[in-house]
Amino acid sequence: MRDKVKKAFDYKRLASAAAALPLLILFLKNLPPDPYFLILLLAVGMLALREFHVMYKVPLFLSIPSVLLGACLLYVMCFYPFYISEAIFAAFFILLMLRLLIPPSPGGALKDIGVIATGYLYIIGFLVFQWFLRRDASGLENIFMLYASVWIADASAYYIGTYAGTHKLCPSISPNKTYEGFAGSIIGGAAGALLVSFIYGFQVLPAGKSVMAGVVIGTVTVSGDLIESMFKRDAGVKDSGNLLPGHGGLLDKIDGLLVSGPVLYILLRFI
Amino acid sequence: MRDKVKKAFDYKRLASAAAALPLLILFLKNLPPDPYFLILLLAVGMLALREFHVMYKVPLFLSIPSVLLGACLLYVMCFYPFYISEAIFAAFFILLMLRLLIPPSPGGALKDIGVIATGYLYIIGFLVFQWFLRRDASGLENIFMLYASVWIADASAYYIGTYAGTHKLCPSISPNKTYEGFAGSIIGGAAGALLVSFIYGFQVLPAGKSVMAGVVIGTVTVSGDLIESMFKRDAGVKDSGNLLPGHGGLLDKIDGLLVSGPVLYILLRFI
Repeated sequence: MRDKVKKAFDYKRLASAAAALPLLILFLKNLPPDPYFLILLLAVGMLALREFHVMYKVPLFLSIPSVLLGACLLYVMCFYPFYISEAIFAAFFILLMLRLLIPPSPGGALKDIGVIATGYLYIIGFLVFQWFLRRDASGLENIFMLYASVWIADASAYYIGTYAGTHKLCPSISPNKTYEGFAGSIIGGAAGALLVSFIYGFQVLPAGKSVMAGVVIGTVTVSGDLIESMFKRDAGVKDSGNLLPGHGGLLDKIDGLLVSGPVLYILLRFI
Repeated sequence: MRDKVKKAFDYKRLASAAAALPLLILFLKNLPPDPYFLILLLAVGMLALREFHVMYKVPLFLSIPSVLLGACLLYVMCFYPFYISEAIFAAFFILLMLRLLIPPSPGGALKDIGVIATGYLYIIGFLVFQWFLRRDASGLENIFMLYASVWIADASAYYIGTYAGTHKLCPSISPNKTYEGFAGSIIGGAAGALLVSFIYGFQVLPAGKSVMAGVVIGTVTVSGDLIESMFKRDAGVKDSGNLLPGHGGLLDKIDGLLVSGPVLYILLRFI
Protein backbone atom coordinates (compact mmCIF):
# COMPACT_ATOMS: atom_id res chain seq x y z
CA MET A 1 0.00 0.00 0.00
CA ARG A 2 2.92 2.40 -0.65
CA ASP A 3 2.12 5.52 -2.63
CA LYS A 4 4.46 4.52 -5.42
CA VAL A 5 4.90 1.00 -6.74
CA LYS A 6 8.54 0.11 -6.41
CA LYS A 7 9.99 -3.19 -7.48
CA ALA A 8 8.37 -5.84 -5.33
CA PHE A 9 11.50 -6.77 -3.41
CA ASP A 10 13.00 -3.57 -2.18
CA TYR A 11 16.11 -4.87 -0.37
CA LYS A 12 16.83 -1.61 1.46
CA ARG A 13 13.33 -1.75 2.88
CA LEU A 14 13.69 -5.36 3.98
CA ALA A 15 17.15 -4.81 5.41
CA SER A 16 16.12 -1.87 7.59
CA ALA A 17 13.12 -3.81 8.85
CA ALA A 18 15.29 -6.86 9.61
CA ALA A 19 17.68 -4.68 11.59
CA ALA A 20 15.10 -2.60 13.47
CA LEU A 21 12.58 -5.29 14.37
CA PRO A 22 14.63 -7.50 16.75
CA LEU A 23 15.88 -4.37 18.51
CA LEU A 24 12.33 -3.17 19.00
CA ILE A 25 11.19 -6.56 20.33
CA LEU A 26 14.09 -6.71 22.80
CA PHE A 27 13.38 -3.13 23.86
CA LEU A 28 9.70 -3.83 24.46
CA LYS A 29 10.20 -7.18 26.20
CA ASN A 30 13.10 -6.40 28.50
CA LEU A 31 12.75 -2.82 29.63
CA PRO A 32 10.06 -1.63 32.06
CA PRO A 33 7.45 0.45 30.18
CA ASP A 34 7.74 3.34 32.62
CA PRO A 35 9.99 5.11 31.67
CA TYR A 36 11.34 3.30 28.57
CA PHE A 37 8.23 2.74 26.48
CA LEU A 38 7.00 6.17 27.57
CA ILE A 39 10.26 7.75 26.39
CA LEU A 40 9.87 5.93 23.06
CA LEU A 41 6.34 7.30 22.68
CA LEU A 42 7.42 10.82 23.61
CA ALA A 43 10.27 10.65 21.09
CA VAL A 44 8.00 9.28 18.35
CA GLY A 45 5.37 11.92 19.13
CA MET A 46 7.89 14.76 18.98
CA LEU A 47 9.53 13.51 15.76
CA ALA A 48 6.18 12.93 14.10
CA LEU A 49 4.94 16.40 15.08
CA ARG A 50 8.13 17.92 13.73
CA GLU A 51 7.74 16.00 10.44
CA PHE A 52 4.17 17.22 10.16
CA HIS A 53 5.29 20.82 10.75
CA VAL A 54 8.06 20.51 8.15
CA MET A 55 5.57 19.08 5.63
CA TYR A 56 3.42 22.17 6.07
CA LYS A 57 6.29 24.66 6.56
CA VAL A 58 5.46 25.83 10.08
CA PRO A 59 8.21 28.31 11.05
CA LEU A 60 10.83 26.94 13.42
CA PHE A 61 10.13 29.63 16.01
CA LEU A 62 6.64 28.22 16.41
CA SER A 63 7.37 24.57 15.66
CA ILE A 64 9.96 24.00 18.40
CA PRO A 65 7.85 25.21 21.34
CA SER A 66 4.86 23.41 19.91
CA VAL A 67 6.79 20.11 19.69
CA LEU A 68 7.97 20.50 23.30
CA LEU A 69 4.49 21.42 24.51
CA GLY A 70 3.15 18.44 22.52
CA ALA A 71 5.39 16.13 24.55
CA CYS A 72 4.04 17.73 27.75
CA LEU A 73 0.48 17.20 26.52
CA LEU A 74 1.19 13.54 25.78
CA TYR A 75 2.67 13.11 29.25
CA VAL A 76 -0.34 14.73 30.92
CA MET A 77 -2.72 12.56 28.86
CA CYS A 78 -0.82 9.45 30.00
CA PHE A 79 -0.63 10.25 33.71
CA TYR A 80 -2.92 13.12 34.66
CA PRO A 81 -6.16 12.74 32.70
CA PHE A 82 -7.90 15.10 35.14
CA TYR A 83 -5.63 17.93 34.05
CA ILE A 84 -5.99 17.52 30.30
CA SER A 85 -8.15 20.65 30.00
CA GLU A 86 -5.59 22.75 31.87
CA ALA A 87 -2.76 21.32 29.76
CA ILE A 88 -4.60 21.99 26.49
CA PHE A 89 -5.33 25.56 27.54
CA ALA A 90 -1.79 26.29 28.73
CA ALA A 91 -0.11 24.82 25.66
CA PHE A 92 -2.46 26.36 23.14
CA PHE A 93 -2.59 29.79 24.80
CA ILE A 94 1.22 29.98 24.82
CA LEU A 95 1.34 29.06 21.12
CA LEU A 96 -1.37 31.56 20.17
CA MET A 97 0.52 34.30 22.00
CA LEU A 98 3.76 33.31 20.25
CA ARG A 99 1.94 33.40 16.91
CA LEU A 100 0.78 36.95 17.68
CA LEU A 101 4.41 38.00 17.99
CA ILE A 102 5.97 36.55 14.86
CA PRO A 103 5.80 38.01 11.38
CA PRO A 104 3.96 37.81 9.10
CA SER A 105 1.33 38.48 11.70
CA PRO A 106 -1.65 38.18 11.41
CA GLY A 107 -1.49 36.84 7.80
CA GLY A 108 -1.32 33.04 7.65
CA ALA A 109 -2.08 32.66 11.36
CA LEU A 110 -4.47 29.79 10.79
CA LYS A 111 -2.12 28.08 8.36
CA ASP A 112 0.43 27.72 11.18
CA ILE A 113 -1.93 27.28 14.13
CA GLY A 114 -4.13 24.87 12.16
CA VAL A 115 -1.17 22.57 11.45
CA ILE A 116 -0.18 22.62 15.11
CA ALA A 117 -3.74 21.96 16.33
CA THR A 118 -4.18 19.14 13.81
CA GLY A 119 -0.86 17.64 14.90
CA TYR A 120 -1.97 17.69 18.53
CA LEU A 121 -5.29 15.97 17.87
CA TYR A 122 -4.14 13.58 15.13
CA ILE A 123 -0.65 12.64 16.36
CA ILE A 124 -0.60 13.21 20.13
CA GLY A 125 -4.30 12.46 20.68
CA PHE A 126 -4.07 9.16 18.76
CA LEU A 127 -0.59 8.09 19.94
CA VAL A 128 -1.53 8.20 23.63
CA PHE A 129 -3.59 5.02 23.20
CA GLN A 130 -0.40 3.01 22.82
CA TRP A 131 0.34 3.94 26.41
CA PHE A 132 -3.18 2.93 27.45
CA LEU A 133 -2.69 -0.43 25.68
CA ARG A 134 0.73 -0.95 27.25
CA ARG A 135 -0.20 -0.15 30.86
CA ASP A 136 -2.88 -2.88 30.91
CA ALA A 137 -2.22 -6.19 32.70
CA SER A 138 -1.71 -7.79 29.28
CA GLY A 139 0.14 -4.71 28.05
CA LEU A 140 3.02 -6.42 26.30
CA GLU A 141 0.71 -8.73 24.37
CA ASN A 142 -1.55 -5.79 23.43
CA ILE A 143 1.37 -3.85 21.99
CA PHE A 144 2.77 -6.85 20.11
CA MET A 145 -0.70 -7.55 18.73
CA LEU A 146 -1.01 -3.95 17.55
CA TYR A 147 2.41 -3.81 15.92
CA ALA A 148 2.25 -7.29 14.38
CA SER A 149 -1.24 -6.76 12.97
CA VAL A 150 -0.49 -3.34 11.53
CA TRP A 151 2.90 -4.18 10.07
CA ILE A 152 1.89 -7.56 8.65
CA ALA A 153 -1.24 -5.88 7.26
CA ASP A 154 0.96 -3.19 5.72
CA ALA A 155 3.43 -5.64 4.20
CA SER A 156 0.73 -8.00 2.99
CA ALA A 157 -1.17 -5.09 1.40
CA TYR A 158 2.04 -3.90 -0.24
CA TYR A 159 3.01 -7.24 -1.76
CA ILE A 160 -0.48 -8.44 -2.68
CA GLY A 161 -1.24 -5.00 -4.11
CA THR A 162 1.97 -5.02 -6.11
CA TYR A 163 1.52 -8.54 -7.52
CA ALA A 164 -2.24 -8.86 -7.84
CA GLY A 165 -3.61 -5.31 -7.57
CA THR A 166 -5.80 -4.23 -10.48
CA HIS A 167 -8.88 -2.43 -9.09
CA LYS A 168 -8.08 1.08 -7.83
CA LEU A 169 -9.34 1.87 -4.31
CA CYS A 170 -9.08 5.64 -4.08
CA PRO A 171 -7.06 7.02 -7.02
CA SER A 172 -7.36 10.73 -6.18
CA ILE A 173 -5.75 10.26 -2.76
CA SER A 174 -3.42 7.33 -3.23
CA PRO A 175 -3.18 6.21 -6.86
CA ASN A 176 -1.47 2.88 -6.19
CA LYS A 177 -3.85 1.50 -3.58
CA THR A 178 -6.08 -1.30 -4.85
CA TYR A 179 -8.98 -3.34 -3.53
CA GLU A 180 -6.68 -6.37 -3.73
CA GLY A 181 -4.19 -4.60 -1.48
CA PHE A 182 -7.04 -3.70 0.89
CA ALA A 183 -8.00 -7.38 1.10
CA GLY A 184 -4.33 -8.16 1.71
CA SER A 185 -4.32 -5.71 4.60
CA ILE A 186 -7.33 -7.38 6.20
CA ILE A 187 -5.81 -10.86 5.80
CA GLY A 188 -2.45 -9.66 7.09
CA GLY A 189 -4.06 -7.94 10.09
CA ALA A 190 -5.90 -11.12 11.02
CA ALA A 191 -2.74 -13.21 10.56
CA GLY A 192 -0.71 -10.85 12.74
CA ALA A 193 -3.24 -10.81 15.57
CA LEU A 194 -3.63 -14.60 15.41
CA LEU A 195 0.14 -15.08 15.48
CA VAL A 196 0.59 -12.99 18.62
CA SER A 197 -2.35 -14.67 20.38
CA PHE A 198 -0.87 -18.07 19.44
CA ILE A 199 2.56 -17.12 20.85
CA TYR A 200 0.88 -16.08 24.09
CA GLY A 201 -1.14 -19.31 24.19
CA PHE A 202 -4.52 -17.61 23.57
CA GLN A 203 -4.61 -16.43 27.20
CA VAL A 204 -6.03 -12.98 26.55
CA LEU A 205 -7.93 -13.48 23.30
CA PRO A 206 -9.12 -16.84 21.89
CA ALA A 207 -8.47 -17.55 18.22
CA GLY A 208 -11.83 -16.30 16.91
CA LYS A 209 -11.68 -12.97 18.70
CA SER A 210 -8.06 -12.52 17.66
CA VAL A 211 -9.03 -12.91 14.02
CA MET A 212 -11.88 -10.45 14.53
CA ALA A 213 -9.56 -7.88 16.14
CA GLY A 214 -7.04 -8.41 13.34
CA VAL A 215 -9.67 -7.90 10.65
CA VAL A 216 -10.70 -4.60 12.24
CA ILE A 217 -7.06 -3.51 12.56
CA GLY A 218 -6.33 -4.53 8.95
CA THR A 219 -9.28 -2.40 7.85
CA VAL A 220 -8.58 0.76 9.85
CA THR A 221 -4.87 0.58 9.05
CA VAL A 222 -5.80 1.33 5.45
CA SER A 223 -7.83 4.33 6.55
CA GLY A 224 -4.89 5.57 8.62
CA ASP A 225 -2.73 5.22 5.53
CA LEU A 226 -5.27 7.13 3.43
CA ILE A 227 -5.52 9.95 5.99
CA GLU A 228 -1.77 10.43 5.92
CA SER A 229 -1.70 10.22 2.11
CA MET A 230 -4.36 12.92 2.03
CA PHE A 231 -2.15 15.22 4.14
CA LYS A 232 0.97 14.41 2.12
CA ARG A 233 -0.78 15.07 -1.17
CA ASP A 234 -2.32 18.25 0.21
CA ALA A 235 1.13 19.41 1.35
CA GLY A 236 2.66 18.33 -1.97
CA VAL A 237 5.25 15.87 -0.62
CA LYS A 238 5.85 12.22 -1.54
CA ASP A 239 7.29 10.96 1.76
CA SER A 240 6.62 12.57 5.12
CA GLY A 241 10.36 12.54 5.77
CA ASN A 242 13.36 10.26 5.47
CA LEU A 243 13.89 8.30 8.67
CA LEU A 244 14.72 4.72 7.63
CA PRO A 245 16.14 3.95 4.17
CA GLY A 246 13.35 2.64 1.93
CA HIS A 247 10.62 3.30 4.50
CA GLY A 248 9.99 7.03 3.98
CA GLY A 249 9.38 9.20 7.02
CA LEU A 250 8.26 8.38 10.52
CA LEU A 251 4.67 9.40 9.79
CA ASP A 252 4.67 7.05 6.80
CA LYS A 253 5.67 4.30 9.21
CA ILE A 254 3.17 5.05 11.97
CA ASP A 255 0.15 6.22 9.96
CA GLY A 256 -1.62 2.87 10.37
CA LEU A 257 -0.62 2.57 14.04
CA LEU A 258 -1.98 6.02 14.89
CA VAL A 259 -5.51 4.97 13.98
CA SER A 260 -5.27 1.27 14.90
CA GLY A 261 -4.00 1.91 18.45
CA PRO A 262 -7.18 3.64 19.68
CA VAL A 263 -9.38 1.20 17.74
CA LEU A 264 -7.69 -1.84 19.33
CA TYR A 265 -7.88 -0.24 22.78
CA ILE A 266 -11.59 0.46 22.45
CA LEU A 267 -12.16 -3.00 20.90
CA LEU A 268 -10.45 -4.77 23.81
CA ARG A 269 -12.92 -3.12 26.21
CA PHE A 270 -15.82 -4.67 24.35
CA ILE A 271 -14.79 -8.15 23.16
CA MET B 1 -10.59 48.12 22.03
CA ARG B 2 -12.91 47.48 19.06
CA ASP B 3 -11.26 46.92 15.72
CA LYS B 4 -12.77 50.05 14.30
CA VAL B 5 -13.28 53.28 16.20
CA LYS B 6 -16.95 54.13 15.99
CA LYS B 7 -18.50 57.18 17.56
CA ALA B 8 -17.99 56.85 21.28
CA PHE B 9 -21.66 56.43 22.13
CA ASP B 10 -22.97 53.75 19.87
CA TYR B 11 -26.60 53.60 20.95
CA LYS B 12 -27.35 50.31 19.21
CA ARG B 13 -24.50 48.76 21.14
CA LEU B 14 -25.69 50.17 24.48
CA ALA B 15 -29.28 49.24 23.80
CA SER B 16 -28.54 45.58 23.02
CA ALA B 17 -26.34 45.32 26.11
CA ALA B 18 -29.05 46.91 28.27
CA ALA B 19 -31.57 44.39 26.95
CA ALA B 20 -29.40 41.29 27.14
CA LEU B 21 -27.68 41.84 30.48
CA PRO B 22 -30.66 41.64 32.91
CA LEU B 23 -31.90 38.56 31.07
CA LEU B 24 -28.50 36.91 31.44
CA ILE B 25 -28.31 37.77 35.16
CA LEU B 26 -31.81 36.36 35.77
CA PHE B 27 -30.91 33.25 33.79
CA LEU B 28 -27.72 32.66 35.76
CA LYS B 29 -29.18 33.42 39.18
CA ASN B 30 -32.49 31.58 38.98
CA LEU B 31 -31.95 28.47 36.91
CA PRO B 32 -29.95 25.44 38.11
CA PRO B 33 -26.64 25.26 36.21
CA ASP B 34 -27.21 21.63 35.23
CA PRO B 35 -28.77 21.64 32.67
CA TYR B 36 -29.43 25.36 31.98
CA PHE B 37 -25.96 26.87 32.15
CA LEU B 38 -24.63 23.76 30.45
CA ILE B 39 -27.12 24.21 27.61
CA LEU B 40 -26.05 27.83 27.30
CA LEU B 41 -22.40 26.79 27.06
CA LEU B 42 -23.18 24.07 24.51
CA ALA B 43 -25.17 26.56 22.42
CA VAL B 44 -22.42 29.19 22.63
CA GLY B 45 -19.77 26.60 21.76
CA MET B 46 -21.69 25.37 18.73
CA LEU B 47 -22.49 28.86 17.45
CA ALA B 48 -18.90 30.02 17.97
CA LEU B 49 -17.52 26.96 16.16
CA ARG B 50 -19.92 27.57 13.30
CA GLU B 51 -18.88 31.24 13.09
CA PHE B 52 -15.25 30.19 13.02
CA HIS B 53 -15.95 27.70 10.22
CA VAL B 54 -17.85 30.33 8.22
CA MET B 55 -14.96 32.81 8.67
CA TYR B 56 -12.61 30.27 7.12
CA LYS B 57 -15.10 28.81 4.63
CA VAL B 58 -15.18 25.22 5.89
CA PRO B 59 -17.70 23.36 3.69
CA LEU B 60 -21.07 22.72 5.31
CA PHE B 61 -20.77 18.96 4.83
CA LEU B 62 -17.80 18.99 7.19
CA SER B 63 -18.80 21.91 9.40
CA ILE B 64 -22.13 20.49 10.60
CA PRO B 65 -20.81 17.15 11.89
CA SER B 66 -17.84 18.93 13.39
CA VAL B 67 -20.08 21.38 15.27
CA LEU B 68 -22.20 18.51 16.61
CA LEU B 69 -19.12 16.49 17.59
CA GLY B 70 -17.72 19.65 19.20
CA ALA B 71 -20.76 19.80 21.47
CA CYS B 72 -20.19 16.14 22.39
CA LEU B 73 -16.54 16.90 23.17
CA LEU B 74 -17.54 19.80 25.40
CA TYR B 75 -20.01 17.56 27.23
CA VAL B 76 -17.41 14.83 27.76
CA MET B 77 -14.88 17.40 29.02
CA CYS B 78 -17.46 18.69 31.52
CA PHE B 79 -18.62 15.33 32.88
CA TYR B 80 -16.30 12.51 31.84
CA PRO B 81 -12.73 13.77 32.00
CA PHE B 82 -11.44 10.18 32.00
CA TYR B 83 -12.86 9.66 28.53
CA ILE B 84 -11.48 12.79 26.90
CA SER B 85 -8.91 10.81 24.91
CA GLU B 86 -11.56 8.44 23.56
CA ALA B 87 -13.82 11.36 22.67
CA ILE B 88 -11.03 13.25 20.89
CA PHE B 89 -10.12 10.15 18.90
CA ALA B 90 -13.70 9.29 17.95
CA ALA B 91 -14.61 12.83 16.91
CA PHE B 92 -11.42 13.52 14.99
CA PHE B 93 -11.28 10.13 13.27
CA ILE B 94 -14.86 10.55 12.02
CA LEU B 95 -14.03 14.02 10.67
CA LEU B 96 -10.82 12.84 8.99
CA MET B 97 -12.73 10.01 7.31
CA LEU B 98 -15.43 12.46 6.17
CA ARG B 99 -12.73 14.76 4.78
CA LEU B 100 -11.34 11.82 2.77
CA LEU B 101 -14.70 11.49 1.07
CA ILE B 102 -15.46 15.04 0.02
CA PRO B 103 -14.07 16.82 -3.01
CA PRO B 104 -11.71 18.46 -3.55
CA SER B 105 -9.88 15.65 -1.86
CA PRO B 106 -7.02 15.62 -0.93
CA GLY B 107 -6.31 19.27 -1.90
CA GLY B 108 -6.99 21.74 0.91
CA ALA B 109 -7.42 18.95 3.47
CA LEU B 110 -5.42 20.78 6.09
CA LYS B 111 -7.17 24.08 5.39
CA ASP B 112 -10.46 22.46 6.50
CA ILE B 113 -9.16 20.08 9.16
CA GLY B 114 -6.86 22.77 10.58
CA VAL B 115 -9.79 25.15 11.12
CA ILE B 116 -11.78 22.40 12.83
CA ALA B 117 -8.87 21.34 15.05
CA THR B 118 -8.14 24.95 15.99
CA GLY B 119 -11.82 25.50 16.79
CA TYR B 120 -11.82 22.47 19.09
CA LEU B 121 -8.74 23.54 21.04
CA TYR B 122 -9.37 27.31 21.04
CA ILE B 123 -13.16 27.44 21.43
CA ILE B 124 -14.23 24.14 23.06
CA GLY B 125 -11.00 23.64 25.04
CA PHE B 126 -11.16 27.16 26.47
CA LEU B 127 -14.93 27.41 26.94
CA VAL B 128 -15.11 24.32 29.18
CA PHE B 129 -13.50 26.28 32.02
CA GLN B 130 -16.69 28.28 32.45
CA TRP B 131 -18.32 25.03 33.50
CA PHE B 132 -15.45 24.29 35.88
CA LEU B 133 -15.88 27.79 37.38
CA ARG B 134 -19.65 27.38 37.65
CA ARG B 135 -19.72 23.95 39.32
CA ASP B 136 -17.60 25.18 42.25
CA ALA B 137 -19.22 25.88 45.62
CA SER B 138 -18.92 29.60 44.83
CA GLY B 139 -19.86 28.97 41.21
CA LEU B 140 -22.32 31.80 40.73
CA GLU B 141 -19.92 34.35 42.16
CA ASN B 142 -17.08 32.99 39.99
CA ILE B 143 -19.12 33.37 36.83
CA PHE B 144 -20.34 36.86 37.72
CA MET B 145 -16.75 37.85 38.52
CA LEU B 146 -15.59 36.54 35.15
CA TYR B 147 -18.32 38.24 33.14
CA ALA B 148 -18.24 41.52 35.06
CA SER B 149 -14.44 41.79 34.87
CA VAL B 150 -14.23 40.93 31.19
CA TRP B 151 -17.12 43.07 30.05
CA ILE B 152 -16.25 46.11 32.20
CA ALA B 153 -12.64 45.70 31.03
CA ASP B 154 -13.87 45.60 27.44
CA ALA B 155 -16.12 48.63 27.80
CA SER B 156 -13.55 50.62 29.75
CA ALA B 157 -10.87 49.83 27.16
CA TYR B 158 -13.26 50.84 24.39
CA TYR B 159 -14.21 54.18 25.87
CA ILE B 160 -10.82 55.12 27.31
CA GLY B 161 -9.19 54.06 24.05
CA THR B 162 -11.65 56.10 22.03
CA TYR B 163 -11.33 59.27 24.11
CA ALA B 164 -7.73 59.15 25.28
CA GLY B 165 -5.98 56.59 23.07
CA THR B 166 -2.91 57.88 21.25
CA HIS B 167 -0.14 55.24 21.51
CA LYS B 168 -0.76 52.25 19.23
CA LEU B 169 -0.49 48.82 20.94
CA CYS B 170 -0.23 46.40 18.04
CA PRO B 171 -1.08 48.15 14.75
CA SER B 172 -0.52 45.19 12.41
CA ILE B 173 -3.11 43.05 14.20
CA SER B 174 -5.60 45.53 15.55
CA PRO B 175 -4.94 49.08 14.35
CA ASN B 176 -7.22 50.84 16.84
CA LYS B 177 -5.93 49.30 20.04
CA THR B 178 -3.88 51.65 22.17
CA TYR B 179 -1.83 51.44 25.35
CA GLU B 180 -4.35 53.79 26.92
CA GLY B 181 -7.11 51.31 26.07
CA PHE B 182 -5.00 48.49 27.50
CA ALA B 183 -4.66 50.43 30.76
CA GLY B 184 -8.42 50.97 30.64
CA SER B 185 -8.92 47.23 30.32
CA ILE B 186 -6.80 46.54 33.40
CA ILE B 187 -8.61 49.20 35.43
CA GLY B 188 -11.99 47.95 34.23
CA GLY B 189 -11.10 44.33 35.03
CA ALA B 190 -10.09 45.27 38.55
CA ALA B 191 -13.25 47.36 39.01
CA GLY B 192 -15.46 44.51 37.78
CA ALA B 193 -13.89 41.92 40.06
CA LEU B 194 -14.04 44.28 43.04
CA LEU B 195 -17.68 45.09 42.34
CA VAL B 196 -18.72 41.43 42.32
CA SER B 197 -16.71 40.63 45.47
CA PHE B 198 -18.32 43.65 47.15
CA ILE B 199 -21.84 42.48 46.20
CA TYR B 200 -21.05 39.06 47.68
CA GLY B 201 -19.64 40.66 50.86
CA PHE B 202 -16.03 39.59 50.13
CA GLN B 203 -16.83 36.04 51.25
CA VAL B 204 -14.77 34.24 48.62
CA LEU B 205 -12.11 36.81 47.78
CA PRO B 206 -11.06 39.77 49.96
CA ALA B 207 -10.69 43.17 48.29
CA GLY B 208 -6.95 42.93 47.59
CA LYS B 209 -7.15 39.54 45.92
CA SER B 210 -10.20 40.60 43.94
CA VAL B 211 -8.28 43.55 42.53
CA MET B 212 -5.38 41.23 41.71
CA ALA B 213 -7.66 38.75 39.93
CA GLY B 214 -9.31 41.63 38.06
CA VAL B 215 -5.95 43.04 36.94
CA VAL B 216 -4.98 39.64 35.54
CA ILE B 217 -8.34 39.27 33.80
CA GLY B 218 -8.14 42.81 32.39
CA THR B 219 -4.71 41.93 30.99
CA VAL B 220 -5.49 38.56 29.42
CA THR B 221 -8.80 39.84 28.04
CA VAL B 222 -6.75 42.07 25.74
CA SER B 223 -4.71 39.07 24.58
CA GLY B 224 -7.92 37.14 23.90
CA ASP B 225 -9.11 40.09 21.85
CA LEU B 226 -5.82 40.19 19.92
CA ILE B 227 -5.93 36.44 19.22
CA GLU B 228 -9.38 36.75 17.72
CA SER B 229 -8.36 39.87 15.76
CA MET B 230 -5.44 37.89 14.37
CA PHE B 231 -7.80 35.18 13.11
CA LYS B 232 -10.29 37.72 11.71
CA ARG B 233 -7.57 39.63 9.87
CA ASP B 234 -6.06 36.38 8.62
CA ALA B 235 -9.47 35.30 7.34
CA GLY B 236 -10.11 38.77 5.90
CA VAL B 237 -13.32 39.58 7.80
CA LYS B 238 -14.15 42.61 9.99
CA ASP B 239 -16.66 41.03 12.35
CA SER B 240 -16.78 37.33 13.16
CA GLY B 241 -20.51 37.37 12.46
CA ASN B 242 -23.59 39.43 13.21
CA LEU B 243 -25.30 38.22 16.35
CA LEU B 244 -26.30 41.34 18.31
CA PRO B 245 -26.73 44.73 16.58
CA GLY B 246 -23.62 46.86 17.17
CA HIS B 247 -21.68 44.03 18.86
CA GLY B 248 -20.39 42.08 15.85
CA GLY B 249 -20.43 38.31 16.03
CA LEU B 250 -20.50 35.89 18.93
CA LEU B 251 -16.75 35.30 18.79
CA ASP B 252 -16.22 39.08 18.97
CA LYS B 253 -18.27 39.03 22.16
CA ILE B 254 -16.61 36.04 23.81
CA ASP B 255 -12.97 36.44 22.68
CA GLY B 256 -11.92 37.90 26.03
CA LEU B 257 -13.99 35.37 27.99
CA LEU B 258 -12.44 32.41 26.18
CA VAL B 259 -8.99 33.23 27.53
CA SER B 260 -10.03 34.80 30.84
CA GLY B 261 -12.17 31.83 31.94
CA PRO B 262 -9.28 29.34 32.21
CA VAL B 263 -6.99 32.01 33.67
CA LEU B 264 -9.49 32.88 36.42
CA TYR B 265 -10.10 29.18 37.13
CA ILE B 266 -6.37 28.45 37.50
CA LEU B 267 -5.88 31.68 39.51
CA LEU B 268 -8.61 30.73 42.00
CA ARG B 269 -6.74 27.47 42.78
CA PHE B 270 -3.67 29.45 43.80
CA ILE B 271 -4.80 32.64 45.56
